[in-house]
Amino acid sequence: MKKRDEDSVVGLTRNNIGVLRDIDYMSEPKLFIPALLGTPRKNRESGDVAKWVCGKMREREEIETQLFDVCDFDLPHDHYGQEIKDRFPEWRDAIIRADGLVIVTPEYNHGYPGTLKAVLDLLLKEYIHKAVAFVGVSAQVWGGTRVIEALLPTARELGLAVTFTDLNFPKVTDKFDQNGKLLDAAYEKRAKDFLDELVWMSSALRWGRQHLPSKFH
Amino acid sequence: MKKRDEDSVVGLTRNNIGVLRDIDYMSEPKLFIPALLGTPRKNRESGDVAKWVCGKMREREEIETQLFDVCDFDLPHDHYGQEIKDRFPEWRDAIIRADGLVIVTPEYNHGYPGTLKAVLDLLLKEYIHKAVAFVGVSAQVWGGTRVIEALLPTARELGLAVTFTDLNFPKVTDKFDQNGKLLDAAYEKRAKDFLDELVWMSSALRWGRQHLPSKFH
Amino acid sequence: MKKRDEDSVVGLTRNNIGVLRDIDYMSEPKLFIPALLGTPRKNRESGDVAKWVCGKMREREEIETQLFDVCDFDLPHDHYGQEIKDRFPEWRDAIIRADGLVIVTPEYNHGYPGTLKAVLDLLLKEYIHKAVAFVGVSAQVWGGTRVIEALLPTARELGLAVTFTDLNFPKVTDKFDQNGKLLDAAYEKRAKDFLDELVWMSSALRWGRQHLPSKFH
Amino acid sequence: MKKRDEDSVVGLTRNNIGVLRDIDYMSEPKLFIPALLGTPRKNRESGDVAKWVCGKMREREEIETQLFDVCDFDLPHDHYGQEIKDRFPEWRDAIIRADGLVIVTPEYNHGYPGTLKAVLDLLLKEYIHKAVAFVGVSAQVWGGTRVIEALLPTARELGLAVTFTDLNFPKVTDKFDQNGKLLDAAYEKRAKDFLDELVWMSSALRWGRQHLPSKFH
Repeated sequence: MKKRDEDSVVGLTRNNIGVLRDIDYMSEPKLFIPALLGTPRKNRESGDVAKWVCGKMREREEIETQLFDVCDFDLPHDHYGQEIKDRFPEWRDAIIRADGLVIVTPEYNHGYPGTLKAVLDLLLKEYIHKAVAFVGVSAQVWGGTRVIEALLPTARELGLAVTFTDLNFPKVTDKFDQNGKLLDAAYEKRAKDFLDELVWMSSALRWGRQHLPSKFH
Repeated sequence: MKKRDEDSVVGLTRNNIGVLRDIDYMSEPKLFIPALLGTPRKNRESGDVAKWVCGKMREREEIETQLFDVCDFDLPHDHYGQEIKDRFPEWRDAIIRADGLVIVTPEYNHGYPGTLKAVLDLLLKEYIHKAVAFVGVSAQVWGGTRVIEALLPTARELGLAVTFTDLNFPKVTDKFDQNGKLLDAAYEKRAKDFLDELVWMSSALRWGRQHLPSKFH
Repeated sequence: MKKRDEDSVVGLTRNNIGVLRDIDYMSEPKLFIPALLGTPRKNRESGDVAKWVCGKMREREEIETQLFDVCDFDLPHDHYGQEIKDRFPEWRDAIIRADGLVIVTPEYNHGYPGTLKAVLDLLLKEYIHKAVAFVGVSAQVWGGTRVIEALLPTARELGLAVTFTDLNFPKVTDKFDQNGKLLDAAYEKRAKDFLDELVWMSSALRWGRQHLPSKFH
Repeated sequence: MKKRDEDSVVGLTRNNIGVLRDIDYMSEPKLFIPALLGTPRKNRESGDVAKWVCGKMREREEIETQLFDVCDFDLPHDHYGQEIKDRFPEWRDAIIRADGLVIVTPEYNHGYPGTLKAVLDLLLKEYIHKAVAFVGVSAQVWGGTRVIEALLPTARELGLAVTFTDLNFPKVTDKFDQNGKLLDAAYEKRAKDFLDELVWMSSALRWGRQHLPSKFH
C-alpha cells in the first residue's frame, strides 16, 4: 500500500472525496474472495453461474478465489450453528483468511436455500468487517432479486458489508450452453462492475482491519 | 353459505363488519393445525416453547394438532425441494390435511434456521389458502421479531396467509422451569389472542377452500 | 354457513380441498376493492398502470372499485399517522367499507414511496381481515419485485392478508401507448389470475368478518 | 494516517486481521456524521433520543455532527425524489460532505415513517460509500428492531454501508425525564459501542473514497 502523500492532504476537497493518490491494486497482496454455491438441488443451474463468476474472478490479478459448494458440507440433522464449525475447517479457515465473499444462490419461494443459511450460520466473528457480493439466479424472469433482499439482514448481522452491484441471472437455463459457456455477452460488463465494486469494498475494509482499532478483531 | 338474512343486512353497521350470524366453532369439524419446531440445535430452548404452545392448542376443542420437529427430517445433502417431498409422507399428508400451521422458531443471525427453510421448501401447493402463525424465540430481548419478518416473503409465496398476532419469547431460558413449565402467567392471555386469531383465519380460509372456486384447488 | 352435506364429505378429495358447493359470486353483493396509486412523482408511469388495473376491475361484475391517488392527500409536514385520519374522510370511509385493496406502486431505492406509507399509516383497525394485492411498477427489468417484498411486513401489521399473485410491470415506459393503452396482450391473462385470487381472498375474509367472532370487529 | 510499519507485517496473524499500527483518530480530520430524526409525528419521543445521540457524538473528538429533522423538509404533495433535491440544499450539501449518517426512527406498522423515506429518496449518489447507523425507537418492547430490518434494502441501494451495532430504545416514554435526560445508565456503554463501530466504518470508507478508484466518485 502506498504511503499517503502529505502534500495531497492539503488538497482535500470540501466534500472529502478528493482522491489523494490512487492505490495501485497490483502492488497490494491479492484479495482472497471465496465463492459459495448456495444450493444442493440436483441439476442446479447455479453451478454454471458459480463457475463462470469464479472464472471472471481468476482473470483479475487482484483476486484469489476458491469455490465452495454447499453440497460438500455434511451437515448433521441434529445440530446446528457455530458449535459445529470445527467440523468444517476448510470453510472456517477460508473465511478467517478472506477479505470478501461471493454468494451464488437461486431463490426458493422468495427466500434463501436452507442449506445456504445452515452453512453461513456455522461462523460468526470470522465474517466481521469483510465484504459480500450477491449473485442471484432464477429460472423465471426476476433474476433472484428477492433472495438477495432476503439475505441482507443476515449478512449484516454476520458483520458483512454488502455491495450494491448485484449480478442477476434470470431465465438461467437459456444463459449457458451445454459446456457451461455463457451465451449473453452483456454479462462481461456486468461482471466487471460487480467485481470492481467488490474489490473496492474488500480493499477498504481490509485497510480498516489492518489500521483501525476495533473490539471485533 | 346461508342466504344472507335481509333483516340482518339492515342491521349492518357502517363499518360493514356487522356479524350476521356467528359460527359456533364447536359445531364445526376441528381445525387441523400442526406445529413445526424449526431448529435442530442441541439443547434448543424452543422445544419447551413448542410443547407449551401445542398444549395450549390441545386445550381448545376446535383445534387438533400434531408436533413436527425438523430434527426428524433426514434431509439429504445433495438434493432439495419438492422433488424429494415423497420421502417425508407424514409431513406431506399433514399439510395436505391441514387448515393452518404454527411455526415455532428461534432467530439465527436475524434469519430463519436453514433446516426450517429446507423443510418448508419440500412442499408448495399443499400450503395454498391455509393460515400460518409464528412463534418467535430468542435468548436475548427481541423475542425473535426479526425471524418472523424474515419468514413473511416465503410464507406468502407458499400461499399461506400470515396472522398478525405473533407470540414472542425473549430471554427464553428464564421463561421455563426444568420441567418445561412456563413461569410467566402473562402468556396465557397472549396464547389466547394468538390462537383466537389463528382459529379465525384458519376457519375463514377453510370456508373459502370449501365454497369458493379457485384454480389452486 | 350451510351444514356440511354428508354426501359431499364422502367425496372429499385426498387434499381436503374438495369444493362442497361453489359460491356463485354473481349472487353475492359486490366486493368493494379500492385501488391506491402510490407515487406522487411527476410524469409517473404508474398512473397508466393504475387506470388499466381499475379498468380490468370494472369489467368484472363482482367488483366495485374507486381509484385513490396519494397526490390528493394534503399530508401535513408536522404530523403523521392515525391522529390525523379524520382529515381524510373519503379514504377512511372507503377502507371501512372495503373488502380488499389494490396498491399500485413503483419501487424507489428498493422500498416503497414515502407518500404511500404515509397514506397507509393513516388508518389501522379499518384494514383488519381484508385482502390486499400488489401491482409493482419499474422503469427497469425487475418489475417492482422488491417494493412488494418491502410492503409485506406493514401490510401484515395492518391486518391485511396479502395475495400471492402479484402483477409486475417492468420497463413500464414501453408498456403503454400515448393514450394509456396497454400494448402487451399477456397482461390480460395475468390480470385475470391477479383478480381471481383477490376476489377469492376478499370473499373468504368477508365471509369470516360476517360469520366468525373476533375481538377486532 | 500512519505509514504501515514493515516490521508489523511480519507479525500478521493467520486470520489476517492483525493490526499493523492503529490509526490515531485524533490526528485525522473529524468525521462528519449528520443525524436525521425520521418522524414528523407530534409529541414524538424520538426527539429526545435524537438529541441524546447527537450529544454523545459531540462528546467524541473524532466526530462532527448536525441534527436534521424531517419536520423541516417542506416536501411537495405532487412531486418526489431526486428531481427536487435542490430545494433542500442544506441536506444535499451535508450528505455530500458526510462520512456517515445516523438515522433515528420510530417504527410505524413494522416499517419506516413515510416522511423519512421521502427525505432519503431526495438523494442518491451522494450517499455512496458512506456509513449509516440506525437508532430504533418504540413505545412498546421491541425497540424498533423491525424498522431497522425494513431500512436495510434501501440503505444498501443508496450505496450506504450499514453498521451492525444498532441502538434500540424500547418503551421510550420511560427512558427520559421531562428535561430529556436519559434515565438508564446502560445506554452509555451501548452508545460507545454504537459510535465505535460507526467511526470504524466511516473511517474505513473515507480512506477508500480517498485512495481507491471507483466509477462512483
